[in-house]
Amino acid sequence: MSRDDATVLFLNEAFYTAFRGRDLLAMHDLWARAAPVSCIHPGWQAIEGREEVMESWRAILGGEGSPDIRCLGAKARLLGETALVVCYEALGGRLLVASNVFVREDETWRLIHHQAGPCQLEPGEVEALLSEQDGEGEGSLQ
Amino acid sequence: MSRDDATVLFLNEAFYTAFRGRDLLAMHDLWARAAPVSCIHPGWQAIEGREEVMESWRAILGGEGSPDIRCLGAKARLLGETALVVCYEALGGRLLVASNVFVREDETWRLIHHQAGPCQLEPGEVEALLSEQDGEGEGSLQ
Repeated sequence: MSRDDATVLFLNEAFYTAFRGRDLLAMHDLWARAAPVSCIHPGWQAIEGREEVMESWRAILGGEGSPDIRCLGAKARLLGETALVVCYEALGGRLLVASNVFVREDETWRLIHHQAGPCQLEPGEVEALLSEQDGEGEGSLQ
Repeated sequence: MSRDDATVLFLNEAFYTAFRGRDLLAMHDLWARAAPVSCIHPGWQAIEGREEVMESWRAILGGEGSPDIRCLGAKARLLGETALVVCYEALGGRLLVASNVFVREDETWRLIHHQAGPCQLEPGEVEALLSEQDGEGEGSLQ
């Protein structure tokens, strides 16, 4: 795995850590400043523009309690100065599948697009994803 | 609009034309050869690999009749040698929202990723999207 692959996967995990921790400041840091951004929350229409996307996160993260979200089976693909991560999201009892697009900006990678939508997997497949994740030993990111 | 923007939007429309026309050969041409590809059909898990993605299109396009799919409100963003299109899909009476990722390959642009998921819009917003599309005069692509 290249250093960029590892960085993108680390930042992808940081996105879910910010989500789970309702950490709006971390979420702000993770999204691109210069490049135009967009976001498609499950069932929502596409949101365009940094201010509008951040407003949506403010609404989502502003509730009480901690969203029980975990990222599973993340795979990164480097495409020059762009990177695409496809991963699953275990959110409460639901399973979602997501596309996260990053660009290289200010010597790091930042999100420019997120789409998550419902996903039907067989229970055995979900368990395989979960056990795969548990086996990766990414304790520092949990 | 740059020439690349226009090409990517044209190829994005060609993707839906191939879908609507159950044109598996056109679909083959639209997807990348060299770059790894992935595809997330609504509700499905992520499919990886050109052969597996094409097999999914063979299953989807192999039915009878023509899927009543239209692409609405497509917007392209160029990211160096990568391009991201966010658009809506009117599929029968359902509305979906999609992310389509293209890379520059062999002097054209080819799809490397597609995710579509359900989207709830107010009826007025759907009509606005439809009338916007009708006003664009893209008759040659319909």
